[in-house]
Amino acid sequence: MNLADIYINYKEDIKTIERELEKNVQTANPILEDASVHLLRAGGKRIRPVFVLLAAKFGEYDIEKLKHIAVPLELIHMGSLVHDDVIDDAELRRGEKTVKSQWDNRVAMYTGDFIFGKAVETSAIFVNPSIHEIMSNAMVEICLGEIEQIRDQYNWEQNMRHYLRRIKRKTALLIAISSQLGAIASKADPDVQKQLYWFGYYVGMSFQITDDILDFIGTEKQLGKPAGGDLLQGNVTLPALYALTKKPQLKAELNDFFNGSNQDKEHFHKFLEVIKRSGGIEYATKMSDLYLKKAFERLDLLPNIKAKQHLSDIATYIGRRKF
Amino acid sequence: MNLADIYINYKEDIKTIERELEKNVQTANPILEDASVHLLRAGGKRIRPVFVLLAAKFGEYDIEKLKHIAVPLELIHMGSLVHDDVIDDAELRRGEKTVKSQWDNRVAMYTGDFIFGKAVETSAIFVNPSIHEIMSNAMVEICLGEIEQIRDQYNWEQNMRHYLRRIKRKTALLIAISSQLGAIASKADPDVQKQLYWFGYYVGMSFQITDDILDFIGTEKQLGKPAGGDLLQGNVTLPALYALTKKPQLKAELNDFFNGSNQDKEHFHKFLEVIKRSGGIEYATKMSDLYLKKAFERLDLLPNIKAKQHLSDIATYIGRRKF
Repeated sequence: MNLADIYINYKEDIKTIERELEKNVQTANPILEDASVHLLRAGGKRIRPVFVLLAAKFGEYDIEKLKHIAVPLELIHMGSLVHDDVIDDAELRRGEKTVKSQWDNRVAMYTGDFIFGKAVETSAIFVNPSIHEIMSNAMVEICLGEIEQIRDQYNWEQNMRHYLRRIKRKTALLIAISSQLGAIASKADPDVQKQLYWFGYYVGMSFQITDDILDFIGTEKQLGKPAGGDLLQGNVTLPALYALTKKPQLKAELNDFFNGSNQDKEHFHKFLEVIKRSGGIEYATKMSDLYLKKAFERLDLLPNIKAKQHLSDIATYIGRRKF
Repeated sequence: MNLADIYINYKEDIKTIERELEKNVQTANPILEDASVHLLRAGGKRIRPVFVLLAAKFGEYDIEKLKHIAVPLELIHMGSLVHDDVIDDAELRRGEKTVKSQWDNRVAMYTGDFIFGKAVETSAIFVNPSIHEIMSNAMVEICLGEIEQIRDQYNWEQNMRHYLRRIKRKTALLIAISSQLGAIASKADPDVQKQLYWFGYYVGMSFQITDDILDFIGTEKQLGKPAGGDLLQGNVTLPALYALTKKPQLKAELNDFFNGSNQDKEHFHKFLEVIKRSGGIEYATKMSDLYLKKAFERLDLLPNIKAKQHLSDIATYIGRRKF
């Protein structure tokens, strides 16, 4: 089972979302439009919009309403990627040049701002304050996560709690509120809304941990960017955290490497090997599976409709994905 | 008449706004909080919140509701300043170090994002979609203005239309919607809402043109940053535009200067003198006065209440301010 097999059930509505996304970033300004369309066309799994649609199947499904939830959530995600690439000084994402590399940091900053503004604009139609509260709170939390990521860069002393809080803010929260808001907008039962929030949260945690694993074991071709990028940026993810606990001398070695003048590739690859051999990948895989299990437990509490099976299929896919 | 004499009439409510602003930027993250509080304490005239309060006097005035309009508008303004300082590579604002200079560009980017998120969060309580639409549309327009400013930098061929559209997006729009939203939130008559929008718009245009004049004729002490900064950044404002029309050879000279390797201070000051002697200051002053006159015409259409006199006083102050 791959994503396309699931997505085909919602083909028309996913097309509507894509159309709305394109429509939203159309502007009189050619630079902003080019940068935004470039970003849109680079694709992505559109996990957040799809979660909105599937969650809404538990209530009164109306695509005309749902697009005002699905589009802003994908836009918030896209905007945060653009700003993330500025911070990480990233040249490539999904095999395509990033906005900051195709244009520059200034354009990337305002493209992100523009996309955030468009996200808020698209969701303006709702009279239910909860929707605005949940969405804006997520925007704030994502920023807090990014600032924490900056603060914790190259800090080899950080612990698991820091890591988990960071990936919650960076990834899990937005996926959680995608299914929650889909349920709220379709007026699903409050308990269903709650279970869908937690389902999205756990899937998101699992998803990000898998992402962090793949950054170590994926090939450049699979990742669309060079492997080991997280560590090279000083972003300490779960496999590295585990290795640092098992081999405390690694801290000094990493410090020496990053503070030294000779940062050659071969030396850096040695670190990747050490982390891979530490058992960190296996540990992180276990953690990812654990979160996935928790996600399934939440699904079990939901009424048996077709969308529930599809949510389960997507979660399974996310747990097994190799890139 | 200075601002303090007018503000004293709304002392308690302005205090409430200040308290709410501080409360809003409090966060568990010390960097973000420091950067935001630093920004808040640097002050500013709080024109936008005050316009919200005064406009609301034309309807059912309720500070508990109004603070959810006044605070986000000031936050949007503050957030845009932080991102603006990144683009302009500015070291000082209002005599204080900018966020990007006190910390760095990355912190400045996320401080801005965080403040924007908080702005949206604060206004989430409203069930009237117009409020969300107007506010988010302004966020988008401000970005468009900033991107245009980047595109038009060092372009000595641009015309007045470019300049006016840019300052509309950069300044006038947010002041316009401050008085408009104050009137909407207090359920003032729709015609009053409309006149207040235009009043704010014209005041904002006049305000920004005066700002652009002061950048040429103010002292470093008055401005809180070195004079001539706009031109040095390649931002072509009204006095420069006028000079370029009167002295077409200036285009080539400016191009030579900015593309040359020798950009000494003395040579640059010669440009400032040429622009000042071109009649550009007088021309811009006339334009600023013209906008102010249009603002007063809108005020004339409003019911005679005390707040109307105070709006008029503020407009007069803005027209005459020297820094």
